[in-house]
Amino acid sequence: MTAMTTAELQAFLLDAFPDSPSTMIVEDCGEWGVRLRLPVTRAHGRPGGTVSGPSLMGLADGAAWLSILAQIGPVALAVTTSLHIDFLRKPPLVDMVAEGRVLKLGKALAVVDVSLRAEGADELVAKAQVTYSIPPR
Amino acid sequence: MTAMTTAELQAFLLDAFPDSPSTMIVEDCGEWGVRLRLPVTRAHGRPGGTVSGPSLMGLADGAAWLSILAQIGPVALAVTTSLHIDFLRKPPLVDMVAEGRVLKLGKALAVVDVSLRAEGADELVAKAQVTYSIPPR
Amino acid sequence: MTAMTTAELQAFLLDAFPDSPSTMIVEDCGEWGVRLRLPVTRAHGRPGGTVSGPSLMGLADGAAWLSILAQIGPVALAVTTSLHIDFLRKPPLVDMVAEGRVLKLGKALAVVDVSLRAEGADELVAKAQVTYSIPPR
Amino acid sequence: MTAMTTAELQAFLLDAFPDSPSTMIVEDCGEWGVRLRLPVTRAHGRPGGTVSGPSLMGLADGAAWLSILAQIGPVALAVTTSLHIDFLRKPPLVDMVAEGRVLKLGKALAVVDVSLRAEGADELVAKAQVTYSIPPR
Repeated sequence: MTAMTTAELQAFLLDAFPDSPSTMIVEDCGEWGVRLRLPVTRAHGRPGGTVSGPSLMGLADGAAWLSILAQIGPVALAVTTSLHIDFLRKPPLVDMVAEGRVLKLGKALAVVDVSLRAEGADELVAKAQVTYSIPPR
Repeated sequence: MTAMTTAELQAFLLDAFPDSPSTMIVEDCGEWGVRLRLPVTRAHGRPGGTVSGPSLMGLADGAAWLSILAQIGPVALAVTTSLHIDFLRKPPLVDMVAEGRVLKLGKALAVVDVSLRAEGADELVAKAQVTYSIPPR
Repeated sequence: MTAMTTAELQAFLLDAFPDSPSTMIVEDCGEWGVRLRLPVTRAHGRPGGTVSGPSLMGLADGAAWLSILAQIGPVALAVTTSLHIDFLRKPPLVDMVAEGRVLKLGKALAVVDVSLRAEGADELVAKAQVTYSIPPR
Repeated sequence: MTAMTTAELQAFLLDAFPDSPSTMIVEDCGEWGVRLRLPVTRAHGRPGGTVSGPSLMGLADGAAWLSILAQIGPVALAVTTSLHIDFLRKPPLVDMVAEGRVLKLGKALAVVDVSLRAEGADELVAKAQVTYSIPPR
């Protein structure tokens, strides 16, 4: 069992950033992790019809954050301490889907593995390892 | 001497992404590297009055890209292959300044060190190492 | 099918570094990747009875390298361009096992995901993403 | 002023790993950081007359560790939580020198920037960002 449901994660995400509301969609969550979708628009685009690197990094960071919250509940104070991402293939300009999987949930740090794909595709677009500092529980 | 001037980098940046024009400002460039400023608005904010991680990652990526172009000229086809960033201190919600310094300019890869600070401050907010794939020259 | 068998990888590894022969053991290889074991001795130890970080990094690098060779054959010229590793749990001083899985095999770069565990254990000890520059094929 | 002198760091390093004594030499330490030298032998070599990646990673990790100890004193319990390294140029098979500079010394985490060069050379061989978990002080 997770500490938050898919609907609770979505509601938390919508309320979290009042000045720049997220458009990302929580598709699923479970023991395995969280799946998050970025509805891609022309504003996420780059010449050649691909998705910008910063859009993918924002999605990876969001998926890592929600994967941790799904385990520990709605604490706003988790902050990213580091992010490493390898960009593997140029995606088309379509929705991007990230799957976050918690590798470690320690007392002070959590580490999440994030896989990014184009919607409906098998091949990885990018792969990230993200570390969050989490408050004492 | 660099292959592009500060003004040329700024003009190139403004034209590069017609569907989501960058608001970043090229402050300086030289043999040492490139200084890039992100004018921070409430849209870059996070609760607690700080700047979002994805905003900082976008700035780091942009500074790395322009640092390479300053050396090799206006080639649109340089693409990020990996980015590693350590977030060191929570900045206030003010303009962020990145300094990119090219560590290696190889035949196929370029690696850039990027330091991020709040405008006017000495302390580092974040530090990144960014790798770009660059076209044959 | 892979370009090299488990036995061929083992033989290649034994011959590759005449001045500091590797003691690592190729346990398995297949479409999925390569499993490599580091026989741990007191020389790999750290106070508290754990395995040193550099030993784990060497194992991760070796597993990435062999995972690529398993796909492209015995080319000596593949060189590491970057390695990122998150250390997740302190292992006991026992043999370490790494599983490398190729995420991307491009024209010039290959990216490998590496999971490290203590022998016989399920939990991850460390997780790495490793990039190699590979010669034109 | 630092919490430890060059001689104290060297003595601590020599005693730290009784089962695999380090051969690294602390050349200097100060407010700016620590300089550590790896006396390179054929055992560190790779075909083509270069230094192995794991040797460079071990040196980077050591320089980061000692840079932190120079600030906080001789605590054995600092452990690496992550390491990112970009390999920039193949060095010759000569002594390697690492300079560690502490970017952040927080309550629970310290982040160190490490530059690696061949002895007497200006060009970077590799560049790392290393994170340590440090005990409460």
